[in-house]
Amino acid sequence: MIAGVALARHRHDGLLFTLFGDEVRIKAALDSHPNLRAASDVVHAASVVDGADKPGVAIRKKDSSMSMAIAAVKSGQAGAAVSAGNTGALMAMAKVALRTMPGVDRPALAAMLPTLGDNDVIMLDLGANTECDARNLVQFAVMGAAYSRIAFDLERPRVRLLNIGTEDLKGTDEIRDAAAILRAADTLPLQFDGFTEGDKISRGDTDVIVCDGFSGNVALKTAEGTARFVTDVLRKAFTSSIRSKIGFLISKPAMHLLKHHLDPNNHNGAVFLGLNGVVVKSHGSADAKGVANAVHVAARLLEEDITRRIAADMAGIADLSATKAAKLELPVK
Amino acid sequence: MIAGVALARHRHDGLLFTLFGDEVRIKAALDSHPNLRAASDVVHAASVVDGADKPGVAIRKKDSSMSMAIAAVKSGQAGAAVSAGNTGALMAMAKVALRTMPGVDRPALAAMLPTLGDNDVIMLDLGANTECDARNLVQFAVMGAAYSRIAFDLERPRVRLLNIGTEDLKGTDEIRDAAAILRAADTLPLQFDGFTEGDKISRGDTDVIVCDGFSGNVALKTAEGTARFVTDVLRKAFTSSIRSKIGFLISKPAMHLLKHHLDPNNHNGAVFLGLNGVVVKSHGSADAKGVANAVHVAARLLEEDITRRIAADMAGIADLSATKAAKLELPVK
Repeated sequence: MIAGVALARHRHDGLLFTLFGDEVRIKAALDSHPNLRAASDVVHAASVVDGADKPGVAIRKKDSSMSMAIAAVKSGQAGAAVSAGNTGALMAMAKVALRTMPGVDRPALAAMLPTLGDNDVIMLDLGANTECDARNLVQFAVMGAAYSRIAFDLERPRVRLLNIGTEDLKGTDEIRDAAAILRAADTLPLQFDGFTEGDKISRGDTDVIVCDGFSGNVALKTAEGTARFVTDVLRKAFTSSIRSKIGFLISKPAMHLLKHHLDPNNHNGAVFLGLNGVVVKSHGSADAKGVANAVHVAARLLEEDITRRIAADMAGIADLSATKAAKLELPVK
Repeated sequence: MIAGVALARHRHDGLLFTLFGDEVRIKAALDSHPNLRAASDVVHAASVVDGADKPGVAIRKKDSSMSMAIAAVKSGQAGAAVSAGNTGALMAMAKVALRTMPGVDRPALAAMLPTLGDNDVIMLDLGANTECDARNLVQFAVMGAAYSRIAFDLERPRVRLLNIGTEDLKGTDEIRDAAAILRAADTLPLQFDGFTEGDKISRGDTDVIVCDGFSGNVALKTAEGTARFVTDVLRKAFTSSIRSKIGFLISKPAMHLLKHHLDPNNHNGAVFLGLNGVVVKSHGSADAKGVANAVHVAARLLEEDITRRIAADMAGIADLSATKAAKLELPVK
């Protein structure tokens, strides 16, 4: 973690850090990173949220590093929190402490996935909400588009809903209703392109893919598992004979390029969108480069004031709900 | 299609075929396959189900090759139908003509996916049912296990439910209820191992993965898309420099092994389980080897009488529902 934050400090010169955790260990680690030490406060946390802690248990550990980091965002002492801890606990704490933004019913977990195109694709929700209604999906679309505009400097990100076919009739009522709302929402700063399917996630023709947290989590993990599966088979294939071993050695730079492209550390940093504050989850197994990337994501979202942007965009949906939802016979809460 | 059926004919000597479609074209194609011609009847079909036909439209084309093939299974003239046509139409026709088996509420679409283990994993439902209740999921588990016992000669296939975490509390009510029923179902010819996640589908530690049709379809397509993405990146990497091109040429046998392992034709043939009859869907882009594999799947299911097996296993669940479901406070229809 400390090495990663030090890397991020090199990239974002103006950032200041408050590091929560075991004071002795953090200070010892900072000895190797004088540049970071000069920009950091260390705050001792008496307890730690365990990976196996249920959210209800974790949330009561007020003196944990995770709780204290989120409390710092709530009080305004920090602009954003980055944690590599228990996702469910982080989500629950962030939701209770920071609360959802006005106009947002539920926050969503968003992450970037590699594509064959120029930019990564932003996908949400990835597991914060097991079941979602049409309103939730529309709000996710708006939040994801705001994130994409910041991350890739796009004016009108191309948004699609994840479905099991591209025809209008496919999918659940929730997805079809969300599509109807988004199709009518021509004043929102996004371009709604209809449905996409699992095999097109990495095609690079979409900037934001919206889904419920169950399918999003299944898709994300299936993509991770398949990439690992293919590279495992590849490794076996390459070590199956002397000839292929030699070929492998000669083409090592190519393999390095592949590894770089698929390296999850290059895409690290899942964001909880829809809260009054920026909270970024770094993968538990991220290396220093991965942690630096998660901090970079948090810094960019702060610099570009994602919370204000989403609030402004949500006002656009509120208008839409008032004027068009009745016509579409959609529930207005 | 004809070349594929001819390949299957070589593998299954006793099989007889009825080929439905454009008589002139089929007979012309059979000229190159005298071995298949000797074992085939050709029946002219005046119309064809289009890939874009809605199921409701397709089902009224009684003189289509698809309708006629399913009618032949219904009348007992054929043991199984194999089609490479419109999946939704095939599913709807098969359901209406053959009806679901006693004890089965809804049929499911099952397919095999490659793993790092000795056997493929059977996954269902892959899109026949967008939403599923606990009863549906339990029935899918029993049907998938019956298929796995036949395909891999297993006594008690290891079954897991696809979820977004492995802890008991994760997922929807439907999934947790299905897990409770399966945990109690110790007389069924399967071993229930709890939950699995998208990144563990190809790990090879499970024989049958059960899910609703929406998540199953998302997972299957995401796996296909990711495998294609990784191999595309790989191809680019290998052609990025002279050095890597040379390496690629030297290690070509290894790449061939990879291609073989990932080739969807080796896993072709999705099965509609739970109907009074065997219906297999061949992928629309399958080559001759893929079609032969789909026919092989149909032949194996016929030889081992999958329908009778599932009926027998379903009786086991019926007992379970009567004796244990009340205690578990689960709905008994």
